[in-house]
Amino acid sequence: MFDIKAFGGVIYGADYNPEQWPRDVWREDARLMNEAGVNLVSLGIFSWALLEPRPGEYDFGWLDEVMDLLHGHGVGVNLATATASPPPWLSLKYPDSKPVTADGVRLEVGGRQLYCPSHAAFRGHVRTLTRQIAGRYAAHPALRMWHVNNEYGCHIDQCYCELCAENFRAWLRGRYSTLDALNAAWGTAFWSQRYGDWAEIQPPRRAPTYPNPTQQLDWRRFSSDNILELYRLEVGVLREVTPEIPVTTNFLGFLPGLDYHKWAREEDVVSLDAYPDPSDAAPHLDAGMSYDLMRSLRGGQRFLLMEQAPSAVNWRQHNAPKRPGLMRVLNHQALAHGASGLMFFQWRASRAGAEKYHSGMVPHVGPERSRVWREVRELGQELKSLSALTGASVRSRVAVMFDWDNWWALELDSKPAALKLMPLVRKWYAALRGLGQNVDFVHPEADLGAYDVVALPNGYLLTAGAAGNLRAFVQGGGTLLTGFFSGIVDEHEHVQLGGYPGLLRGVLGLWVEEWAPLQPGETTAVRLEGGEEVQATQWAEVIHPDGAQVLATFAQDYYAGGAAVTRHAFGAGQAYYLGTDLPQAALAGLLEGALRGAGVPLCH
Amino acid sequence: MFDIKAFGGVIYGADYNPEQWPRDVWREDARLMNEAGVNLVSLGIFSWALLEPRPGEYDFGWLDEVMDLLHGHGVGVNLATATASPPPWLSLKYPDSKPVTADGVRLEVGGRQLYCPSHAAFRGHVRTLTRQIAGRYAAHPALRMWHVNNEYGCHIDQCYCELCAENFRAWLRGRYSTLDALNAAWGTAFWSQRYGDWAEIQPPRRAPTYPNPTQQLDWRRFSSDNILELYRLEVGVLREVTPEIPVTTNFLGFLPGLDYHKWAREEDVVSLDAYPDPSDAAPHLDAGMSYDLMRSLRGGQRFLLMEQAPSAVNWRQHNAPKRPGLMRVLNHQALAHGASGLMFFQWRASRAGAEKYHSGMVPHVGPERSRVWREVRELGQELKSLSALTGASVRSRVAVMFDWDNWWALELDSKPAALKLMPLVRKWYAALRGLGQNVDFVHPEADLGAYDVVALPNGYLLTAGAAGNLRAFVQGGGTLLTGFFSGIVDEHEHVQLGGYPGLLRGVLGLWVEEWAPLQPGETTAVRLEGGEEVQATQWAEVIHPDGAQVLATFAQDYYAGGAAVTRHAFGAGQAYYLGTDLPQAALAGLLEGALRGAGVPLCH
Amino acid sequence: MFDIKAFGGVIYGADYNPEQWPRDVWREDARLMNEAGVNLVSLGIFSWALLEPRPGEYDFGWLDEVMDLLHGHGVGVNLATATASPPPWLSLKYPDSKPVTADGVRLEVGGRQLYCPSHAAFRGHVRTLTRQIAGRYAAHPALRMWHVNNEYGCHIDQCYCELCAENFRAWLRGRYSTLDALNAAWGTAFWSQRYGDWAEIQPPRRAPTYPNPTQQLDWRRFSSDNILELYRLEVGVLREVTPEIPVTTNFLGFLPGLDYHKWAREEDVVSLDAYPDPSDAAPHLDAGMSYDLMRSLRGGQRFLLMEQAPSAVNWRQHNAPKRPGLMRVLNHQALAHGASGLMFFQWRASRAGAEKYHSGMVPHVGPERSRVWREVRELGQELKSLSALTGASVRSRVAVMFDWDNWWALELDSKPAALKLMPLVRKWYAALRGLGQNVDFVHPEADLGAYDVVALPNGYLLTAGAAGNLRAFVQGGGTLLTGFFSGIVDEHEHVQLGGYPGLLRGVLGLWVEEWAPLQPGETTAVRLEGGEEVQATQWAEVIHPDGAQVLATFAQDYYAGGAAVTRHAFGAGQAYYLGTDLPQAALAGLLEGALRGAGVPLCH
Ligand SMILES: [Zn+2]
Ligand SMILES: [Zn+2]
Ligand SMILES: [Zn+2]
Repeated sequence: MFDIKAFGGVIYGADYNPEQWPRDVWREDARLMNEAGVNLVSLGIFSWALLEPRPGEYDFGWLDEVMDLLHGHGVGVNLATATASPPPWLSLKYPDSKPVTADGVRLEVGGRQLYCPSHAAFRGHVRTLTRQIAGRYAAHPALRMWHVNNEYGCHIDQCYCELCAENFRAWLRGRYSTLDALNAAWGTAFWSQRYGDWAEIQPPRRAPTYPNPTQQLDWRRFSSDNILELYRLEVGVLREVTPEIPVTTNFLGFLPGLDYHKWAREEDVVSLDAYPDPSDAAPHLDAGMSYDLMRSLRGGQRFLLMEQAPSAVNWRQHNAPKRPGLMRVLNHQALAHGASGLMFFQWRASRAGAEKYHSGMVPHVGPERSRVWREVRELGQELKSLSALTGASVRSRVAVMFDWDNWWALELDSKPAALKLMPLVRKWYAALRGLGQNVDFVHPEADLGAYDVVALPNGYLLTAGAAGNLRAFVQGGGTLLTGFFSGIVDEHEHVQLGGYPGLLRGVLGLWVEEWAPLQPGETTAVRLEGGEEVQATQWAEVIHPDGAQVLATFAQDYYAGGAAVTRHAFGAGQAYYLGTDLPQAALAGLLEGALRGAGVPLCH
Repeated sequence: MFDIKAFGGVIYGADYNPEQWPRDVWREDARLMNEAGVNLVSLGIFSWALLEPRPGEYDFGWLDEVMDLLHGHGVGVNLATATASPPPWLSLKYPDSKPVTADGVRLEVGGRQLYCPSHAAFRGHVRTLTRQIAGRYAAHPALRMWHVNNEYGCHIDQCYCELCAENFRAWLRGRYSTLDALNAAWGTAFWSQRYGDWAEIQPPRRAPTYPNPTQQLDWRRFSSDNILELYRLEVGVLREVTPEIPVTTNFLGFLPGLDYHKWAREEDVVSLDAYPDPSDAAPHLDAGMSYDLMRSLRGGQRFLLMEQAPSAVNWRQHNAPKRPGLMRVLNHQALAHGASGLMFFQWRASRAGAEKYHSGMVPHVGPERSRVWREVRELGQELKSLSALTGASVRSRVAVMFDWDNWWALELDSKPAALKLMPLVRKWYAALRGLGQNVDFVHPEADLGAYDVVALPNGYLLTAGAAGNLRAFVQGGGTLLTGFFSGIVDEHEHVQLGGYPGLLRGVLGLWVEEWAPLQPGETTAVRLEGGEEVQATQWAEVIHPDGAQVLATFAQDYYAGGAAVTRHAFGAGQAYYLGTDLPQAALAGLLEGALRGAGVPLCH
Repeated sequence: MFDIKAFGGVIYGADYNPEQWPRDVWREDARLMNEAGVNLVSLGIFSWALLEPRPGEYDFGWLDEVMDLLHGHGVGVNLATATASPPPWLSLKYPDSKPVTADGVRLEVGGRQLYCPSHAAFRGHVRTLTRQIAGRYAAHPALRMWHVNNEYGCHIDQCYCELCAENFRAWLRGRYSTLDALNAAWGTAFWSQRYGDWAEIQPPRRAPTYPNPTQQLDWRRFSSDNILELYRLEVGVLREVTPEIPVTTNFLGFLPGLDYHKWAREEDVVSLDAYPDPSDAAPHLDAGMSYDLMRSLRGGQRFLLMEQAPSAVNWRQHNAPKRPGLMRVLNHQALAHGASGLMFFQWRASRAGAEKYHSGMVPHVGPERSRVWREVRELGQELKSLSALTGASVRSRVAVMFDWDNWWALELDSKPAALKLMPLVRKWYAALRGLGQNVDFVHPEADLGAYDVVALPNGYLLTAGAAGNLRAFVQGGGTLLTGFFSGIVDEHEHVQLGGYPGLLRGVLGLWVEEWAPLQPGETTAVRLEGGEEVQATQWAEVIHPDGAQVLATFAQDYYAGGAAVTRHAFGAGQAYYLGTDLPQAALAGLLEGALRGAGVPLCH
């Protein structure tokens, strides 16, 4: 239902919060938007308290006026459902609508996103407000798109209140049907945790020691699904009232709390808020990763960059500005990675509130004498010649496998080592980008037919479906690269016995007997194929090749001489295994060899 | 009402807690006090539980005896109102008199200062106890001064309970009259925070993300005022019963929680507890700063050093003793900076309780063979020849501007960078002391007529009144030195638009377009007037001179070549601006030039 | 009642959790146990939820079967009372049986050990379950020993709930009889803390500042005693039903929460869980210390190593495996230090739950091709030739004094420096082991007649009884070595006045005037007897010898030239005092000299 052609080129704009400014500024805004080439603004995201100042009393007058003004200047509107932050009256009227931490602290007003996603009356108010707004503006000529809520899960991705506990139990009933099945899945024979009644089950609140890991894992799944219900509730209203208007909600890239693979299915177009840190040496890597994830979530459909900072943000401890030219470059990067829209938070930098030091397209100093404004305006002009890009597609021959179940499972406590997923993914991604590859991020059970090479930096939790998918991929001629500690557990986080990595032993042509995680700062020597010795970190293990060829060996400790990296010819394909965390250059070298072997053209 | 002449010389003494010792020790104490030259002790600070063992039942017998004993030995008494720490019975009787944290944890008995300042019954008990003590000892010949409560705000400077929330709302009504005014001041159009009912307003308790900054700022103001009400309540009783006896409460130097500019007005004499760390390389700097603040709070009136440690304290992780001679030197320093009294915590080191390892004038080892006692006694003798000092006044030609509103505002979250005020103030103070200057600390709206030079290390929050004050000061020939990120917001923490630093652009002859905060550990090169290049930290920015002369320029990054330090001839005066955090030596050099320019004599 | 001869040699086995596995694995387990030489398993530790699936309904069928199977294979059973972790139904039925933190957070289900030790109904269920199990298996031929609960105090060593507060008050009444006595002991004259009613007393919950130290100290004593009551409750039942079966509960070495000196008296044999970190350079030192403590707790009686890891654990951040051979060596070490049994956690590595990455005797990979299994089996075989060791006794000529009262008191807040006890004990222990000494750990009031040398790395809290004990020991010819900051307070943590270290001045022949703790990273030069200068840390002080001979002097700071280490000939013995924290080698040198002087044979 989303068609970029309706926008007449690359979308360019920002969040627009006119309620923070007097009317005479609105007219100035419209003029400046034209000057900058703005064609779309997101409106009303935080307007609930103004639109519904008292329960059931609405005041749409000012919004009507802004909509008309924008339309009069040819600026389209990505209209928010205004539900992102409930007004103080809602928190006062329903004290149990305020979310609760794992420690039992009920949070309070003053910030934003203060709601328990399970609260029935809150959901009711959300539904009503959405219906009011959708009904009122359904036919407004400025309306281009619906912006549902805002940054779901940004602050509150888990609420531990009793209402959520009830919803969790219902979700578990849906997943397991019987307590016997749940007890089996959670392994409650351990530590005397067998449940005899659904009412005994709790969220993983603060406990004397590590809560049950499958309880924790299911809690993360539930928490994502529970917030998704909120999104669905609004989308249901919108699709009913304005079936032809596309719907989106802005994602936050690699956000830990929400399984965007599930979420993206329910949007018409994916949109992204991306805030790479300008003080990083390579901010484009984090940016590019999130662009590629967004493009991948809906099978290559181009996405919208819904928020980015014109210059500095306000929420890091020390917020560097974007140096001259950097903003433009990152936007060109976004277009190249599949964006069709380039929008900012926010149009005009605020005078007050918690985000007043977040840069705006119109800075505090005003537009006339600001280099940020100049860059903003010049980019707007430049985009007019780049409309064709919105029809281009991005082809990747390499996919990185990524999913939230694995992320959650890997980072649960009680592991051989406290591994973090994103540093591994970032490291592999940087190496692949250094070899000139476009990269898709794919779900483990996705169709891999389009790829020559699939990289799995870590796939600790691997379902039977995913393992079969990988097996078929290699069998059919694909090249698979698998990082250490992959294929260890099933979807319940139960260990696959009989030699790691469970269901991948055949494809990889080896089995792992035991792990030898390193301490922080500790290294272990690895001898590469050419004889070079490098210092690997984090992980070592005892690998028994069973068909695989050894490409690198450990060169110290009790596992010295044992395989560290292997390659296995399987079916028509090749399966690599990395039993340690190689330094960046060695990893890149290994990936280069694998890509060459797979016939993928490189470009340094 | 406070007249040092009534004390017959420099006040010398300590907190005295006879209730911790048997009667025979009291007589030994009196004898030793005479030996040491003690002429004043603070009595009864933590005696509530003994004086009123059960609600409404009083036992003053032991205190009568101690008062008489001291009087008999010629030792005056700074009598406490005994309200510093309510007895356990009060906490049990009124569970809601126990203070609450921002997380909702109600604190418990076992420590001290366990009270919510808003609790009505607690206030009632405080009033009654004060009246009892005042009435009983009004005419006692040993009585010299009232010591109200103790170290207000030391542990509990904010209570988040529901009673305090109610008081906060009342305070806000007093400040803003209407909700519209409050909504405007707090910028509640942002993040859907508009309040429709006073009851919706809460303290900035733990929230999903940054609470509203003006809510936080007003909360700090309220919390200081709310505790000040407690102080006023006691003072009201005391002034009624003994109008001729001076009143004080001991301050804690640069304490974050209480706005001492407001507090000091309500005392007859300022008193200070000062605990510089003997393991610091320059403990005299912290000590001197707090002495100068105390002297400044009441317009140059000499103050009392009410507490200091004879040697080590007990509450740091590692407590160094004062090496031989250091205690004496720090006391001479206090006299030179304006003290008229030199007192210790405490007379006799305790055997039990949480402060038993805090040094006392009489150490655990006993007086006969202790070097601490020897130093104490020798100082007491020495002071007898220094009475004249209590009439001396301290003249400063340089003032450092300092106020709590700015401190609170600067250190709120969501800033361009997480700046801390005190390190900047300390750095400028050290440079000025190195140039031989006496320094006053002045409120931004204070009369600046007495000064040649005013330094504003940081004035992030600057009212229109303060800006006008500075403008008039320079206009009239004064020299102003302003640090970066000054003049940014008004009293509601709203940004002044149109080019920073808001209301100071004219005086400084420049405008700032954008900031480029540095990361921790990052430096930026600055070329000084003579061509020397130094490495500055924390902050850089893009300055556009508009009349000002450039004294130093940035020498790297995208703002290279731009002004880093400027001077503007304005009216009959000079206004300097520092757009970065210079190293100590360069800062001192700059200040030296400015002082010379202002005709202030230097002394290295 | 415990007789190792009944086990026919060294005990060898593991925790066995068959409830996590299907029946066909049980039979494989029995076969493999025989193959490995296993003769004892701990059974049922976490079986409560299976044995009593609903309140009062029991299902012992599966346990009967396992008991019979084990007996059929000649494997004895150390049968658990199954009370270690109550089932979820208990937490739901009695919400106030869930323990509470010092912040007031009530903990929740999902982990283990979720109980308040004071809860009456919980205690009732524990009693009933114990009686059920004891009754059912009293006559079972596989039963060898009772394993009471599991790792008491591992996660919950203090519960701050209202029930525990009530028990605390009762315990205090028992200890002090009158409030006057309590007020004196707690020093409540300080900070207005005098109690007028028992009901006013609280646990040391979160407070505005440091709670009363004696309150904290008594709370630690109470908390250990309160959990001990739970243990006694079970033992009472067991001794009644099966008076001839020995009883134990597994200790955790130097566990902060429980005073094992008191606990061990109530066992028939001490058992230990020992988990030295294989990534430490010297894991045998931590292991050896805990072995020696266990052997010492019951006067030299050999102990059981109840749990150890075959290879890696799962609960550190980075869990190194035990390299080949290390497990065997540590077990031989345990035998040499007095173990009669060598058991593991656990028999078979779990597939699910929070400990699935804790190694097992049977690893995930299965036994056939695992080096861990090979080492396990070989050790089992080797042990068959070592039965004689179970009758050997360990003779030590050196004792290290160690007790929980001192540990708790030393690490309370508000000290001259934040000293930690265990690093000091470990340092002295390492030095003594380096000199070839067997070391006993003795209570300060224990009979010292068997020792030539007693070392007191720190004895901050020293009772009059302990001081008299040490005095008599030296008088009678013993050699005492005392570390700094010893002999400072009595059992109420009241300072001994008149020169430190209180009651030890006579024995040591000196008095200490004042302390000069160092900052972290700071050192102070000490000149040793031979003239060598070393850098000491943590502590310095001003010592006045009064009969003692100076062995080393401070060489810097204001105490330069003063004694740092002394020796005093007292009666027929020698008393050394160390006034600083010497480097390891200098400490070892000093101990070597003292041991030589005492005629103790050394062996490097
Ligand atoms: Zn909830
Ligand atoms: Zn309060
Ligand atoms: Zn409890």
